[in-house]
Amino acid sequence: MALVAGVDQGEVVHKPSLDPLSALIGSDLEHVNRLIVDRMQSPVALIPQLAGHIVASGGKRLRPMLTLGCARLCGYIGTRHVALAAAVEFIHTATLLHDDVVDASDLRRGRETANALWGNQPAILVGDFLFSRSFELMVADGSLRILEILSRASSVIAEGEVLQLMTQNNLKTTEASYLEVIRAKTAELFAAASRIGAVVAERPQEEEMALDRFGRDLGIAFQLVDDMLDFSARQTELGKSIGDDFRDGKVTLPILLAFARGDEEERTFWRRTLEDMDQCPLDLEHATALVERHGALAETLSRARCYAASAIDALSLFPDGPERRALIEAASFATERSA
Amino acid sequence: MALVAGVDQGEVVHKPSLDPLSALIGSDLEHVNRLIVDRMQSPVALIPQLAGHIVASGGKRLRPMLTLGCARLCGYIGTRHVALAAAVEFIHTATLLHDDVVDASDLRRGRETANALWGNQPAILVGDFLFSRSFELMVADGSLRILEILSRASSVIAEGEVLQLMTQNNLKTTEASYLEVIRAKTAELFAAASRIGAVVAERPQEEEMALDRFGRDLGIAFQLVDDMLDFSARQTELGKSIGDDFRDGKVTLPILLAFARGDEEERTFWRRTLEDMDQCPLDLEHATALVERHGALAETLSRARCYAASAIDALSLFPDGPERRALIEAASFATERSA
Repeated sequence: MALVAGVDQGEVVHKPSLDPLSALIGSDLEHVNRLIVDRMQSPVALIPQLAGHIVASGGKRLRPMLTLGCARLCGYIGTRHVALAAAVEFIHTATLLHDDVVDASDLRRGRETANALWGNQPAILVGDFLFSRSFELMVADGSLRILEILSRASSVIAEGEVLQLMTQNNLKTTEASYLEVIRAKTAELFAAASRIGAVVAERPQEEEMALDRFGRDLGIAFQLVDDMLDFSARQTELGKSIGDDFRDGKVTLPILLAFARGDEEERTFWRRTLEDMDQCPLDLEHATALVERHGALAETLSRARCYAASAIDALSLFPDGPERRALIEAASFATERSA
Repeated sequence: MALVAGVDQGEVVHKPSLDPLSALIGSDLEHVNRLIVDRMQSPVALIPQLAGHIVASGGKRLRPMLTLGCARLCGYIGTRHVALAAAVEFIHTATLLHDDVVDASDLRRGRETANALWGNQPAILVGDFLFSRSFELMVADGSLRILEILSRASSVIAEGEVLQLMTQNNLKTTEASYLEVIRAKTAELFAAASRIGAVVAERPQEEEMALDRFGRDLGIAFQLVDDMLDFSARQTELGKSIGDDFRDGKVTLPILLAFARGDEEERTFWRRTLEDMDQCPLDLEHATALVERHGALAETLSRARCYAASAIDALSLFPDGPERRALIEAASFATERSA
């Protein structure tokens, strides 16, 4: 366990991290990274250039780590999980490319986005390429069950992204709609990535569904915290600019809570900035003050912790051991990270 | 055979059409259309709205007709070809949605494009949705061979689309590069659509490859004629506006031939309009006059006929009969259509 010591009411506490999971899966993740680079090659030079850029800016590799870790938890000892983890990451990467075009984002994790560097056209088309490559990897693996799980997840992700467009700039969005969006756009792939760890290990349906729930609840927790960090992350660590969602007019849980708890003057502020998209430079600061004043960030974090706890509960089916402990810590990391 | 009689040097000639193929596959195509409508449903209402629009503007259903017709040619008598033809059409439809965003097109076959009506964001995301649905259909069918053929085709299409971006606005594009683009962006899916007719009928590799060649050469012929018709189609029939490629700065074969055969003044015209994208309203008329004067349209058509003849040759492996005759006429239709 990562022994980053802190002092909390006299106790030494451990700041959860992804290190135990990284240590557990060892060189598997390097193999995934190598396979990703290998499979994004194309005689059309712009494709590996652009794909290499997004893959390099893609972050923590949490989704493929879940596939690798869950396969290990299920006692899998072969090598198929490497290609499947790469397929999961390709789906995620294709989604990121299209998301950045849809959001007209210039920055992702502190680097210019592919659409900012090369324009929307190749970003859309290379997204399509990576998505196809993902299916080629799955087909080469040969499991129709896994193809079923991941093709279904891809449809649900696209549905979630369209639903998100509908809730954007709309303060009448309900918490239920917001949850539906994050379940579809984020949690579905976390669920599928985790679940296929049991499928590849040929474990019973019960374990498959436990890992599905683990990934799903972890995914919701992860996205809730992401939405909270849009108001509070330390810019250098997160890489992405704070306030991206606010500037895009995305109606996330912190905003929904602050809007519900605010007075009429505050609601007028939210309507102007998010529905009319009439924003001036100091508005983000005021929005941040409002979500803090109403406890909306603390409430979002508290809900995220509930989902993380539920994710951890789902692992109770599996025997204690380094694999389960590493996945439990990954779930804690999802909510306790500061970036 | 469609007996649209014409008089050519005293002989009655038959204008080739898709009617024999339509008659042959009968209600199968209706089943495909019904399955398409069924599988584009989603609780997110915008998805079936937008998908329904593009599916309705999608044209002749040539690709699924090839799957259905080739399956029949191979003696297939089951029902799997219906879902596979729908999967092929979904890949095509997803590509059209993304193409129209990439080209910033307002019209497709005389109707406003999805991106013109709903904006780029949902057009991109619904494209992703239809692409995922296509894989869900294939997975439900359960043939890994067919999944392999169509996932590979999808990657190649995306590569072709990126390569097309590279040749756009570039009069140094070689004929070889142009051919590479149309092979990838168009002919690959025609080849795959035809080939899987043999796979579903469990015919030997030799027949699979013959249908692959049939579809591929037919696809090249089809695209060559499409590029010719961009200068010469009858607007009402084609539906799409004439001159779309020219206005997008796409460097197609008629232009490459006219550029190569033109004098320095003409080349200056092509550079201004296609490389500098400095176009005025009368330029399309002048461009059309140039491609006609240099015989570039006739030469493009002549090459298309060579590919169509090669496609027809590929069918010689199969016994004569209404199936083969219908596919032969479809290949003739590809080059003799006026829209």
